[in-house]
Amino acid sequence: MSSPQPVSHLEEYLAAEQVLVDRALNRWLPPEAAEPETLHKAIRYSIFAGGKRIRPLLAMAAARVIQPEILGSEDAACTLEMIHTYSLIHDDLPAMDDDDLRRGRPTNHIVFGEAMAILAGDALCTIAFQTLARLPHTSADARLALIDELATASGTIGGMIAGQVHDIEGEGQPPTAKLLDQIHHAKTGALLRASVRMGAIYAGANAAQLDALTRFGEHMGLAFQIVDDILDIEQSSDALGKTAGKDAAQQKVTFPAVHGLAKSKEMAAQERAAAHAALDEFGPRAARLRQLADLIVERQK
Amino acid sequence: MSSPQPVSHLEEYLAAEQVLVDRALNRWLPPEAAEPETLHKAIRYSIFAGGKRIRPLLAMAAARVIQPEILGSEDAACTLEMIHTYSLIHDDLPAMDDDDLRRGRPTNHIVFGEAMAILAGDALCTIAFQTLARLPHTSADARLALIDELATASGTIGGMIAGQVHDIEGEGQPPTAKLLDQIHHAKTGALLRASVRMGAIYAGANAAQLDALTRFGEHMGLAFQIVDDILDIEQSSDALGKTAGKDAAQQKVTFPAVHGLAKSKEMAAQERAAAHAALDEFGPRAARLRQLADLIVERQK
Repeated sequence: MSSPQPVSHLEEYLAAEQVLVDRALNRWLPPEAAEPETLHKAIRYSIFAGGKRIRPLLAMAAARVIQPEILGSEDAACTLEMIHTYSLIHDDLPAMDDDDLRRGRPTNHIVFGEAMAILAGDALCTIAFQTLARLPHTSADARLALIDELATASGTIGGMIAGQVHDIEGEGQPPTAKLLDQIHHAKTGALLRASVRMGAIYAGANAAQLDALTRFGEHMGLAFQIVDDILDIEQSSDALGKTAGKDAAQQKVTFPAVHGLAKSKEMAAQERAAAHAALDEFGPRAARLRQLADLIVERQK
Repeated sequence: MSSPQPVSHLEEYLAAEQVLVDRALNRWLPPEAAEPETLHKAIRYSIFAGGKRIRPLLAMAAARVIQPEILGSEDAACTLEMIHTYSLIHDDLPAMDDDDLRRGRPTNHIVFGEAMAILAGDALCTIAFQTLARLPHTSADARLALIDELATASGTIGGMIAGQVHDIEGEGQPPTAKLLDQIHHAKTGALLRASVRMGAIYAGANAAQLDALTRFGEHMGLAFQIVDDILDIEQSSDALGKTAGKDAAQQKVTFPAVHGLAKSKEMAAQERAAAHAALDEFGPRAARLRQLADLIVERQK
């Protein structure tokens, strides 16, 4: 059985998937007109800010590896974007990374004030778990497994919140490979890995399938972070839509800082190859996931 | 069938229940020694700060109304304390209420810095939902219902986060009964109501039982907020363990500001009576819940 959509027409596929994700986000988030309006406007300002939806797309592609005809995975997948966006809103606050540009627009607290930005982030965290608890067409056990997976990936033991602490505490520290590993695995790696795993869980993957997709997620996540660090050096703020060169300015522990630029590029290519290899057993069913891994490594912003 | 514990010995009962809650919190929260240590210290600093555990105690007492011999309700109940504590940590931030005293000690951001306080709050929100997803001895459907209940009560549509927005936006506004109602129902009412409902859901209450306990929760929640507003005027910071007189200083919309002090006290007494009346059908089984409502109204801090 082949994938329901042809592997060609990559851009149309991406655009169609992004529409599904945006529609799901629109369904699960309160409308702007609901009280309190300012809060709901602040939430939607950051959610509908032109994000690439990489995490939901990974989840949906992983679900289709397991069940090519599966429907509704965007409902589960969009909760990854809620968590990712809440972390960006909080990360941009003056008390954290103090950034005023994100996805080419003023950050949430610049537009709505710090108090509203804190609450908008809190709200997105809450709505993400509520959405998973209410997922239609999904067994109660699967919904609980998805909630646990998302909470672990965004949590304090090797998860996203732990990564932000390591990142903050790592500023100005000697850039060692060990510290770098700790930061990246938690800060971006955990949620990217969970993206693939949540798609697989939603589609009812067996243990062997989940293992293979987890390996893919780990290598792809590492490639993603290496490329992110490289882009911060090589691209302009205009191209990135966020402040470029901040890592060096804030003495962040990054792949180029630890390994140099040339070695970092080599590492990204190796991780991409390892990600591809993890998908071997799935054959053509995993074509979309392979393309997403390639996009992640080849992206210019 | 009577309650497994005698209704007398109130102080021993409270102390014993608080021990159960604290043990549950200790089990579900990462140890201080787990990486990242600073974050886990910050979480435990605010969780184990001598809070009265009113919300968990309400949940456990409500569970015992439905099933006097029920065990393990403290695991579900302690998630209410996680959400309550995260809201206090974020509420005390300079960008929000800017308070440096809570439960008689410096607030979280004073001790650990603003970035860590934001992340500690985020972490508690996440761990609360994860704990419910992992509850032992509870059906998958009950766990999902508890997650949905907690998310709704702490959320943006009439929930705790909505209440904080109304509270911030209400500062300096004319103190009308309508605005007061909106703030209190969402800011403290929703989570107190959910405390009782979560205990009832945990214990498998039927629809009629849940309705009666919900009515109790609404009247008791209103009484709680009226008394809170009165204490802010009548008590010293020393007695409260937090900054007294802040409501007036920040021009908050409170019950005494809208109705005057004497009328507010009358209202608290009426709400207590209505809370008691909602429990009539349960007879002696609800003795503990009645005592908790009395404690809430008669408390001095």
